[in-house]
Amino acid sequence: MIHIAITAGGTEEPIDGVRKITNMSSGSLGWHCLEALLANMHKQNRTDFEIHYIKAPKAITKQLDAKYQPHVNFVNVSDTQSVYNSVERLLDRVKIDLFIHSMAISDFAYAYSASIADLASELHQAFRENKDISTEEIEAILRDPKNKYSKEDKISSQKEILMGFKTTPKVISLIKKKNPETFLVGFKLVKSHDEEFLISEAEKLRKINRCDAVFANESSQLSEESHAGILMHLGKIVARPTGKREIAETIVNFAVNEILKNE
Amino acid sequence: MIHIAITAGGTEEPIDGVRKITNMSSGSLGWHCLEALLANMHKQNRTDFEIHYIKAPKAITKQLDAKYQPHVNFVNVSDTQSVYNSVERLLDRVKIDLFIHSMAISDFAYAYSASIADLASELHQAFRENKDISTEEIEAILRDPKNKYSKEDKISSQKEILMGFKTTPKVISLIKKKNPETFLVGFKLVKSHDEEFLISEAEKLRKINRCDAVFANESSQLSEESHAGILMHLGKIVARPTGKREIAETIVNFAVNEILKNE
Repeated sequence: MIHIAITAGGTEEPIDGVRKITNMSSGSLGWHCLEALLANMHKQNRTDFEIHYIKAPKAITKQLDAKYQPHVNFVNVSDTQSVYNSVERLLDRVKIDLFIHSMAISDFAYAYSASIADLASELHQAFRENKDISTEEIEAILRDPKNKYSKEDKISSQKEILMGFKTTPKVISLIKKKNPETFLVGFKLVKSHDEEFLISEAEKLRKINRCDAVFANESSQLSEESHAGILMHLGKIVARPTGKREIAETIVNFAVNEILKNE
Repeated sequence: MIHIAITAGGTEEPIDGVRKITNMSSGSLGWHCLEALLANMHKQNRTDFEIHYIKAPKAITKQLDAKYQPHVNFVNVSDTQSVYNSVERLLDRVKIDLFIHSMAISDFAYAYSASIADLASELHQAFRENKDISTEEIEAILRDPKNKYSKEDKISSQKEILMGFKTTPKVISLIKKKNPETFLVGFKLVKSHDEEFLISEAEKLRKINRCDAVFANESSQLSEESHAGILMHLGKIVARPTGKREIAETIVNFAVNEILKNE
């Protein structure tokens, strides 16, 4: 039995009851990976596989052919913490052979809102009371001020505000920690840069999280048809696919080939 | 010729190339208002009307009956500034008889991101150089620090951050300023509270922006079927509709009746 996990779409971090920070990722590349996997398994006449598709709220989904439906298990997630919890539960329960981690996951979760005026007045008072205030003491105020809006408060629409954010747990770091045998495909998106930089960022991601392969691309190249990037395996460029469909097929066929070598 | 404007959905404020702050408003109530208006005009056998439907990116739209299509003019907007610009252009060009302002509009636009550590160090230095620093001087730093991420920087995923937000122009205040004759329907959403509070908030909205009618509701009452609230006209409760469809019909039929009185 082959177990595969795919994460897709962009997480949503809630701010209050009506607002949230969203990532514009459509989940399209993740869905193409799912389709490429199903096609790959079908071509090999394999039915001994299960795909765990972990999807963010706005990630696109399409109708699956009836013969494929029993092989795909959808897991709905929303914010980064919920992805972390779902992936951790999945990894504790199932030995994953291939993990395609294409989801755009927020590095930050909302902590608080404060008006700039109220926060300035809190800092001013702290300075007056403690002439030897340290950078760390100022940091502590900025991290969690007294003068912030409570959950019940309506945030004034007339005042400039600050929002504080805390860091989120790193989902990708869980994968090899739970099972060093999993073939892990990471994704690196950088802002417009040369290829040397793209490769060095992909290598950083690979080394920190023990990825086997990394698909690296830059944000100017994200359209459905002309989406381009490089697929790297253990630090070497192995393919330069173009278009989301070809990218997905290249990643999936390469990764499945690698895991079947060890079967 | 009757000219009607409807705003629908929730604005999206961009943070960087991939993230944005969105409002969860579905635009469903706005769409129901459009459908109720078309039904109302049809019932009266009127064809001398034009609806300007100003929609946010995620606001739902459905297929319109072919006979209605020539009467509806769609205007796509994204962030608050784009709503302001579009509404201003519309009001300069057309004398609007009825304005149904159901869009959830962000009160804030993204200004900057800074790491908490970098901002604390900037404040610490400012304080050391000027022991008599004023609240206003601290505010100026918080509003626009030197130690912020530039547009080209990648925001570190390892550090806690702060985001600064500036206030946005108030779209609703434009409407009566451009044409005091427009019948303006405002919407007030409050967090869970008693009716007295709901009414006082609706009255504030009405008085500040010279609304004729206000539909007021609380965020616990937002579901499609059980959405409830009160319709107020010049400070008095005139209806208590339930369900988005009934709410839309109540608002539209009331407002059209009022504007036709003056025809």
